[in-house]
Amino acid sequence: WAYVELDPKQVRILGHQNYFAVNCCYGAFVAIVDALKEKVGFPFDQFPSKMFAFGGGGMTGWGGTCGALIGAAAAINLVVAPPDSGAIISELVGWYTKTALPTDEANELANQGEYVAEMKFAGALPQSEAGSMLCHASVTNWCKAAQKGSGSPEVLERCGRLTGDVSAKAVELLNARLAGNFTPAFKQDDTTAGCLACHGPGESFEAGQFTRGLQACTSCHEPHD
Amino acid sequence: WAYVELDPKQVRILGHQNYFAVNCCYGAFVAIVDALKEKVGFPFDQFPSKMFAFGGGGMTGWGGTCGALIGAAAAINLVVAPPDSGAIISELVGWYTKTALPTDEANELANQGEYVAEMKFAGALPQSEAGSMLCHASVTNWCKAAQKGSGSPEVLERCGRLTGDVSAKAVELLNARLAGNFTPAFKQDDTTAGCLACHGPGESFEAGQFTRGLQACTSCHEPHD
Repeated sequence: WAYVELDPKQVRILGHQNYFAVNCCYGAFVAIVDALKEKVGFPFDQFPSKMFAFGGGGMTGWGGTCGALIGAAAAINLVVAPPDSGAIISELVGWYTKTALPTDEANELANQGEYVAEMKFAGALPQSEAGSMLCHASVTNWCKAAQKGSGSPEVLERCGRLTGDVSAKAVELLNARLAGNFTPAFKQDDTTAGCLACHGPGESFEAGQFTRGLQACTSCHEPHD
Repeated sequence: WAYVELDPKQVRILGHQNYFAVNCCYGAFVAIVDALKEKVGFPFDQFPSKMFAFGGGGMTGWGGTCGALIGAAAAINLVVAPPDSGAIISELVGWYTKTALPTDEANELANQGEYVAEMKFAGALPQSEAGSMLCHASVTNWCKAAQKGSGSPEVLERCGRLTGDVSAKAVELLNARLAGNFTPAFKQDDTTAGCLACHGPGESFEAGQFTRGLQACTSCHEPHD
């Protein structure tokens, strides 16, 4: 399915809108696919997008991988075949873990009244780095930064803007690839790189090679000597 | 997209096969959709299934939500519209966290030589409860139970059988729903229920309602008084 250049601002607004229509995973997927549908039509108008509702709240509320990441990653993979899509998706995940969200761009759209969906909270929202790709950690870290409960209207609005942000970032990465200048920018932090020197994947259980993953280890674990 | 009854054994073999064809997320999704394609044909023969490669290794190796869960959940949502699908997907996730994997059924298929893909390790594999929906924790807990490195052939074989197991369990749940006797069996453990009495979602940050998620809290956190 061929990608054409999309407008990140349009996609950011669509992501926010479709978060409130269904949820984060659906919202991020549909933001990208609906923008492609508008520009390209077939076959993007045939996709059963409702199926991406499954990823909301880190999968039916379980708090696993952020649904906006799942929806955006799926949309990326629809227009860039694996394994080429891997570097783009990995960059999106890395960006997500290290970016103050919702972005300034998202707060600016709110201030300018440009969102289509009715906002649950008007004006700029506090920002936080998720430090993790997980819904659970992402929401918790934002609640702590904002001093808000996880069932508050502010959290809903935050996740709506974040859905737009993730969709828009995915489109920026896809646009860059289309223009031939996609360059991964995410770098693993030194602490995690140090952990993985022993605990990366490999054949030796005894040497500590008993795990997999690329997240910052200290987002869940205490360092050891 | 209408679901028809599928054979869990066929789907278990397809899941294992398609794990080795691409990865866990693709494997679980395709196991279910290919079985439906064989029985129903259109529109299951139109789906761009390759897009589900994104979820491998908890999303391009990051270690988030297990890709087999993502692929199976997406397939469930394709044939049961949200929000009805939510209880089935949530049951699948709960089952995943509390089941010794790979299952006896998966090991038995190996012993009988019934897998289509060439096995990386012949015979029965050690089993472990993931205790978590995350690839990272699931792989680590298995490596500890099996005393194997995460880059060992045994881990690949374990994840291949697990992909078949998750696909087959999804089909068992879908078959039960089709027969009108789907009943959720997963129950949150008492410790987690106790944690969530204060730390569940809500509006009061001060009362501890700053988080979201349904996983067993002690899979990552130490309990506090």
